[in-house]
Amino acid sequence: MNNYRLTLSYDGTKYNGWQRLSNTENTIQHKVETTLSRLLEQKIEVSSSGRTDAGVHARRQICSFRTETMLPCEELLGELRRYLPQDIGALDLTPASPRFHARLNCTEKTYLYRIWNSETPNVFERNYLYVYSVPLDIEAMKAAAALLCGEHDFSAFTSAKQMKKSAVRRIDSIIIKRKEEEVQLFFTGNGFLYHMVRILVGTLLEVGTGKRKPEEIPGILASREREQAGFLAPAKGLTLWDVQY
Amino acid sequence: MNNYRLTLSYDGTKYNGWQRLSNTENTIQHKVETTLSRLLEQKIEVSSSGRTDAGVHARRQICSFRTETMLPCEELLGELRRYLPQDIGALDLTPASPRFHARLNCTEKTYLYRIWNSETPNVFERNYLYVYSVPLDIEAMKAAAALLCGEHDFSAFTSAKQMKKSAVRRIDSIIIKRKEEEVQLFFTGNGFLYHMVRILVGTLLEVGTGKRKPEEIPGILASREREQAGFLAPAKGLTLWDVQY
Repeated sequence: MNNYRLTLSYDGTKYNGWQRLSNTENTIQHKVETTLSRLLEQKIEVSSSGRTDAGVHARRQICSFRTETMLPCEELLGELRRYLPQDIGALDLTPASPRFHARLNCTEKTYLYRIWNSETPNVFERNYLYVYSVPLDIEAMKAAAALLCGEHDFSAFTSAKQMKKSAVRRIDSIIIKRKEEEVQLFFTGNGFLYHMVRILVGTLLEVGTGKRKPEEIPGILASREREQAGFLAPAKGLTLWDVQY
Repeated sequence: MNNYRLTLSYDGTKYNGWQRLSNTENTIQHKVETTLSRLLEQKIEVSSSGRTDAGVHARRQICSFRTETMLPCEELLGELRRYLPQDIGALDLTPASPRFHARLNCTEKTYLYRIWNSETPNVFERNYLYVYSVPLDIEAMKAAAALLCGEHDFSAFTSAKQMKKSAVRRIDSIIIKRKEEEVQLFFTGNGFLYHMVRILVGTLLEVGTGKRKPEEIPGILASREREQAGFLAPAKGLTLWDVQY
């Protein structure tokens, strides 16, 4: 079997997320698999570094797939660029070592959450920004973010119920930057639970508006209860920024 | 009569351009006029600094309208932001002097044309970029651009036929910048004919690929014949950048 690594970029606005589902063809995985299967005239299954939810974007999503055929990567990349929808871009396609698996081998991911912190509309980036125009105390948000870094049980920060698997994850860094009217939050860690980044953002926004204090973070983590954490920030502001192996 | 100045930003992707038309309601002017008329409970006619074609965007379009009512600008601006479609943004609304007219008083406009000069797809800005991946000689384009600046009869650079009015316009500057994979062309002048910026871009691209030489520009201008100039670059790459009074 030959193994390939495919780097994708997508605007998730119109999709029901990454994962192929039985009840809709409107997923990114479905589009990529059907396009590849048609081009290669064989059934191709594509793994990614992880699912992205409905409406979430990816600047760099890493995928892998296997086939018995030896593929002319450059030519196939050109065909993918021609036949994938305009909101899914094939950035790169290369042969991968036989053991490479996009999900299993992923060691670290970075997500970016973009907040448009202004009442002045931004029509051009409206699908990639969460409009939240209340003034934000960025220093308080940074203080809270520091308390979220490190290895913790993040049960309070996920919408997944009755988890059988461990909810322990390690956040390596949360970088918060103001760029004029935009506030950017970069989260880097070894893995993120279902809705985790968006609940972290909702919680940090509640700190930013003064509804919560940074000192409350350890208690929220210790509670392991979803109700203790903040609101679920909308999907449209979230972009999978990069994936490390 | 009270006179108001309204600054708009719009993503022109889905519209048949600025100007209200009898055969479609899908124009930016129609959306803005109907929204303002409904909010003010009276028929409002809105002028802009000039029409933009179907698919062309505006970062800052200046408009004006008159009404007998004294308007609470801040409140009305908030209502406009609430009721205009997501791809039309109200940036600002202020009282204007009685003689101010957005089109008649405009002294200078700047347009930006964005070229994605790469085979690597850009999914996030796809509606605002013209993908043209052939390598470009930027220095040759700059040399040609310099010959287009100044006051000229631009008959060769418009799709308008049998013009009764003068086709003499003054281009103050054409600034061409490469920013990694993107090439940006800024055009500033006292007025632009129908399709003029897009034909200037098509002609400059033909210089950039070596199909034409910069020295040919004076001859094209002198010919006053549309066929002598380059192709019409697509609308999606064009944005009205700013308007001066």
